[in-house]
Amino acid sequence: MDFELNEDQIAFADMATAFARNELEPHAAEWDQNAFFPLEVIRKAGEMGFASIYAPEAVGGLGLSRLDASIIFERLSMGCTSTTAYLTIHNMVTWMVTSFGKPEVLDTYASALVSAEKLGSYCLTEPNAGSDAASLKTTAQRDGDHYVLNGSKVFISGAGSTDVLVVMARTGGPGARGVSAFVVDAQSEGISYGRSEDKMGWNCQPTRMITFDDVKVPVSHLLSEEGEGFVLAMKGLDGGRINIASCSVGTAQQALNLARNYLLERKQFGKQIGDFQGLQFRLADMATELVAARQLVRLAASKLDRQDADATTYCAMAKRFATDVGFRVCDEALQLFGGYGYIKEYPLERFVRDTRVHRILEGTNEVMRVIIGRRLLADTDSEF
Amino acid sequence: MDFELNEDQIAFADMATAFARNELEPHAAEWDQNAFFPLEVIRKAGEMGFASIYAPEAVGGLGLSRLDASIIFERLSMGCTSTTAYLTIHNMVTWMVTSFGKPEVLDTYASALVSAEKLGSYCLTEPNAGSDAASLKTTAQRDGDHYVLNGSKVFISGAGSTDVLVVMARTGGPGARGVSAFVVDAQSEGISYGRSEDKMGWNCQPTRMITFDDVKVPVSHLLSEEGEGFVLAMKGLDGGRINIASCSVGTAQQALNLARNYLLERKQFGKQIGDFQGLQFRLADMATELVAARQLVRLAASKLDRQDADATTYCAMAKRFATDVGFRVCDEALQLFGGYGYIKEYPLERFVRDTRVHRILEGTNEVMRVIIGRRLLADTDSEF
Amino acid sequence: MDFELNEDQIAFADMATAFARNELEPHAAEWDQNAFFPLEVIRKAGEMGFASIYAPEAVGGLGLSRLDASIIFERLSMGCTSTTAYLTIHNMVTWMVTSFGKPEVLDTYASALVSAEKLGSYCLTEPNAGSDAASLKTTAQRDGDHYVLNGSKVFISGAGSTDVLVVMARTGGPGARGVSAFVVDAQSEGISYGRSEDKMGWNCQPTRMITFDDVKVPVSHLLSEEGEGFVLAMKGLDGGRINIASCSVGTAQQALNLARNYLLERKQFGKQIGDFQGLQFRLADMATELVAARQLVRLAASKLDRQDADATTYCAMAKRFATDVGFRVCDEALQLFGGYGYIKEYPLERFVRDTRVHRILEGTNEVMRVIIGRRLLADTDSEF
Amino acid sequence: MDFELNEDQIAFADMATAFARNELEPHAAEWDQNAFFPLEVIRKAGEMGFASIYAPEAVGGLGLSRLDASIIFERLSMGCTSTTAYLTIHNMVTWMVTSFGKPEVLDTYASALVSAEKLGSYCLTEPNAGSDAASLKTTAQRDGDHYVLNGSKVFISGAGSTDVLVVMARTGGPGARGVSAFVVDAQSEGISYGRSEDKMGWNCQPTRMITFDDVKVPVSHLLSEEGEGFVLAMKGLDGGRINIASCSVGTAQQALNLARNYLLERKQFGKQIGDFQGLQFRLADMATELVAARQLVRLAASKLDRQDADATTYCAMAKRFATDVGFRVCDEALQLFGGYGYIKEYPLERFVRDTRVHRILEGTNEVMRVIIGRRLLADTDSEF
Repeated sequence: MDFELNEDQIAFADMATAFARNELEPHAAEWDQNAFFPLEVIRKAGEMGFASIYAPEAVGGLGLSRLDASIIFERLSMGCTSTTAYLTIHNMVTWMVTSFGKPEVLDTYASALVSAEKLGSYCLTEPNAGSDAASLKTTAQRDGDHYVLNGSKVFISGAGSTDVLVVMARTGGPGARGVSAFVVDAQSEGISYGRSEDKMGWNCQPTRMITFDDVKVPVSHLLSEEGEGFVLAMKGLDGGRINIASCSVGTAQQALNLARNYLLERKQFGKQIGDFQGLQFRLADMATELVAARQLVRLAASKLDRQDADATTYCAMAKRFATDVGFRVCDEALQLFGGYGYIKEYPLERFVRDTRVHRILEGTNEVMRVIIGRRLLADTDSEF
Repeated sequence: MDFELNEDQIAFADMATAFARNELEPHAAEWDQNAFFPLEVIRKAGEMGFASIYAPEAVGGLGLSRLDASIIFERLSMGCTSTTAYLTIHNMVTWMVTSFGKPEVLDTYASALVSAEKLGSYCLTEPNAGSDAASLKTTAQRDGDHYVLNGSKVFISGAGSTDVLVVMARTGGPGARGVSAFVVDAQSEGISYGRSEDKMGWNCQPTRMITFDDVKVPVSHLLSEEGEGFVLAMKGLDGGRINIASCSVGTAQQALNLARNYLLERKQFGKQIGDFQGLQFRLADMATELVAARQLVRLAASKLDRQDADATTYCAMAKRFATDVGFRVCDEALQLFGGYGYIKEYPLERFVRDTRVHRILEGTNEVMRVIIGRRLLADTDSEF
Repeated sequence: MDFELNEDQIAFADMATAFARNELEPHAAEWDQNAFFPLEVIRKAGEMGFASIYAPEAVGGLGLSRLDASIIFERLSMGCTSTTAYLTIHNMVTWMVTSFGKPEVLDTYASALVSAEKLGSYCLTEPNAGSDAASLKTTAQRDGDHYVLNGSKVFISGAGSTDVLVVMARTGGPGARGVSAFVVDAQSEGISYGRSEDKMGWNCQPTRMITFDDVKVPVSHLLSEEGEGFVLAMKGLDGGRINIASCSVGTAQQALNLARNYLLERKQFGKQIGDFQGLQFRLADMATELVAARQLVRLAASKLDRQDADATTYCAMAKRFATDVGFRVCDEALQLFGGYGYIKEYPLERFVRDTRVHRILEGTNEVMRVIIGRRLLADTDSEF
Repeated sequence: MDFELNEDQIAFADMATAFARNELEPHAAEWDQNAFFPLEVIRKAGEMGFASIYAPEAVGGLGLSRLDASIIFERLSMGCTSTTAYLTIHNMVTWMVTSFGKPEVLDTYASALVSAEKLGSYCLTEPNAGSDAASLKTTAQRDGDHYVLNGSKVFISGAGSTDVLVVMARTGGPGARGVSAFVVDAQSEGISYGRSEDKMGWNCQPTRMITFDDVKVPVSHLLSEEGEGFVLAMKGLDGGRINIASCSVGTAQQALNLARNYLLERKQFGKQIGDFQGLQFRLADMATELVAARQLVRLAASKLDRQDADATTYCAMAKRFATDVGFRVCDEALQLFGGYGYIKEYPLERFVRDTRVHRILEGTNEVMRVIIGRRLLADTDSEF
């Protein structure tokens, strides 16, 4: 066993930290306030390879592991949670398109996604099926050399500002085996976008409903095979859960750092508040849980990289634990700042708002418990 | 012992519920979005007596108990947390002015505060003394028949939109015994207001810094005696803590009601989500803790009404417990709503943002622990 | 509303405190170590009325309310958790027999139970139906002027040392409506007792399995009517839950008192450990939660006294919350004692062991959540 | 990074599992009940190298890493927590003696400790200095070629049944720098042993006070140099904390396994209780936290192996987190067993009693927070 970053990982982590400090952190508050989607900065991230971290090198991706990606996303999120979270979604899309796309799709989209010249959205969730992906109702009917899509998707990150949609739609019977995945041009005729949702956080990425009304998609835009869509979507989510968990860990680390500095500066009742043991204990617990969360995320990423039979369970554990801990650490850091934690002059309240959604998306933390509990009670041996 | 509301309490509670439903709830989201301070609605509340619930009947107040006030504030906060929270501050100001003001002050301000024609702000906190009120630096120097005030106050609710300030300032030596309380006209020469703070929540009440630069205040505007200011401020806070705790309980009750309804309506995986035992357990715990919190708040209010020697400790317990539970219940309700909990179309995320500050203000929950712990370890008998 | 004890309640509480200090506390450790069932002391409690607190005055009971009983049990449990817990069970039996017994039963048993000359056991739980009381399998078949009982009961407190059994058995079809309640002489032919279970705690009351093998019970020993047994059992449990919750509150109060004293005495790192803020915060939280738990128990008892339609829900809330908080407070008090908390020279570890079972019996805390959740999701209005 | 066991680790883990199943688990309940110290089985463990896991190979130890030791102790503790916990202490003693002993000491003790022919006790804690090791009062005065020891030690595991004591005593001035470490023959004249403490758990290892009354110790029995004792003791504790944390993880894993099996077997309300989602969620959380705890322990062990500058902080984090999680998992598993969890026929209640002390010893979890908090607030860079 080895728990240390290797040289490459240190180098990538340092690059990500520099990018976070220079390109994200100085603007994050303003982007949040103005609900500004920082396309240019995302493209700059693309130039560094951060739009295709685990996409194959053959198509120009960095070809790194999920573990490497987790390290990078953690550092980026220290600068801006919401921008980094969008970037993780774009990476998921890039990976799906470049790993499962047919040659025509690769020709059209691969290099543009890899460089973040074109941005992607992941379209799974539907109005009446938040976490129950297998019951989705959007249809894709074969009509000659096209599929025709009808239905709607909700809570789509980036929607309206992105170029490429990965859409799960039903090509067959009910249940998971009837679902297929498609690459869809975001400007296709028949696509309409709902209004940008006002949200608690994640404000620098737009979230919209998308409606598909007889949208024609070339058959070559099918990812993998018909009926494989649900499997692809779930594979995507395993990685997505690690990514979002990494964003929670990074944001919480930033919150912890700021809280520590504040305890060293702020005075009350005649002494530095860091001298109050009640607050020291709080800080100690925040750090301890955060270190545990980071380790669990890295363990899960490693299991995914090894294609461990229980990778999905580990990813669910990491997502559940790290997003809960991450939120709690941000919330406690806000508390340590007192009134200053509640105003937008300081980033603590934004950290709380941004990390709040991590407990919900990519499968709610309740769905994570379903996945973990089911695995534990399955009648095969388990190492848990 | 008797744990039931009496007829008068039921009547006031029903009035408050009606007001919350008709005057607050329909507008609360919009007020939050636009940072709109609803002066007219606050005046309407004043017409019903809700601006002077526990001010003496002699000056036109309702003359009710703190327990009655808690019941009313709880119901009002079900309509709008932030407006009700401001109203509790105005009630505190009204009570202080009408209970400890000299005749000149009563003549000038009592009826206007009681009716909410004029609104009040409570000015205790200073930039470098969040919870350490005894160390405040604002000075009030006697100069003939005036005091001259210099210094600044931060995080003042309503500041810039209110008419009457109750200001704690130092008239004597260091420590608590050197502090006096004054009624100050908000338009006095020498007062300047900072910009409206951008906050996580409590958006429908402005929060500003106030700077006093040689502000002249007539000696008749001293509340009680010189040196009594800290005692008055702390008395005010005992009640203020119950009030804010009541707003947490009411908001959480509203969140719980909405979550319950959602569990009965929403379907996932082919059944009503209320059929999932994992979620039922969550709902059960939310309700249980909320009922416990409400009881603790009412116990503390009753202790304050009886002028129990340990009233301050009970108020600290109630504030600590009910604001923590209230926030947690709102946060869990948001979680049960999933993605819909995170968008502003539903009020859950606002409940979380609004109740978040209750754990900080009127003395942080850490300061509450200091108060409680100190009392427990005092060498007198205790019934706790 | 009124949250203060009245004069009678204070008098009873003082009596109970004196009894706890003089008759229970000095022996509790030894009784635990030797698994000694203190029959004589229980009879002394009976002489004071503590064996029939809420049994009707007509049969010699104190005729007090459930709220009064809660206050008394809380104080008694400060002396010995396990003895008091048994006493609450005896009170439940006494109440059931004296409230629902036919004249022959009253003649035979009432005064002996009221005085604790004879002791009772409550026989509901069966080997394969811990919390699923409605599915019980013990049968009672009518045969002339007798019923003949067959089956077994497990985890029966006092079994083997008590004189009177209240037994739930099936006289009709499946489900709750087929169950009846009987008073059975503990020495009846055909009754056999299992070995005394070795338990984590509650050692001063024996716990045994009881097997009924063609046990003849006179028809006059039926409580209430055939088919009413489940309703009676559940009514008994509502009260039983308040009682056991009261024992948790009392034990935790004793633990808190001892921890406070220890913080004032023990020195480490050159100062009294009560000066460490980290420990003060802990103590403050213990006290706060305990006060909240006590209030919730008293609220529930009051609801039961008023025969409130939601009394069962309140009792479930009180049992769930107070037994969890009670255990946690004892566990934290043990922690504050450090190594001394772990050895039997001090009572802390016994408090933890004794209160541990309160989260399980009288319906597990998971069953409490089922009851509360079901009520919240019922389609009638609720005040929760 | 690599999170998988290597082949050697798998082999050792398998050996430990076999030993736990065959030699420990079948007897653990009986040893607990009879307070029996299983000397023979400990010697058998010694034959396998488990008495000197990280002692140098040069003296016959296995020469493994702390990480390897953690893996082995985790597996052993699945069979008997208390025996394994004693074994970790013996390992700590063996390591100290063999790493810092002078040639005479090595000649006399090394091989006997390595083989567990002789057993060791670690004597640090004193009556008035639980966690405040630097203030210890036991003295060692130089007198010719001996030191003369006076003072007492409390809570000494194995005392009275062991052969070799490692004793911290003051040879110089006050504070940490005045402390030295000695190897003392347990049968030396002037040593007397207190009675065996009755404890909540850890019953199969005796715990006694030791009094030193003019005990003569050869100068050659000084470990390292005069004044190095505190440093040695703290180094020992870093490892001791990982060891005890490993015992919590292993015991909790055993509890989790049993709970899972119980959920698959037990029926209530007409179905297997594993079908209740409320319980599945509980099981999922237990497993998730346990996996996180294990990872944190292994991370800390790895940091210790690497002699990382922050190893002490990581060890404190691992001890705090894993002993809290371990206890909680055992407690939840007991709860899932219901009444059966509370009786000694099943091991759950023993797991709770045994793991309870892990939160206290080797430095209480409050002292761990002090260590972590102090490090975080030190003015050097930190990676936490």
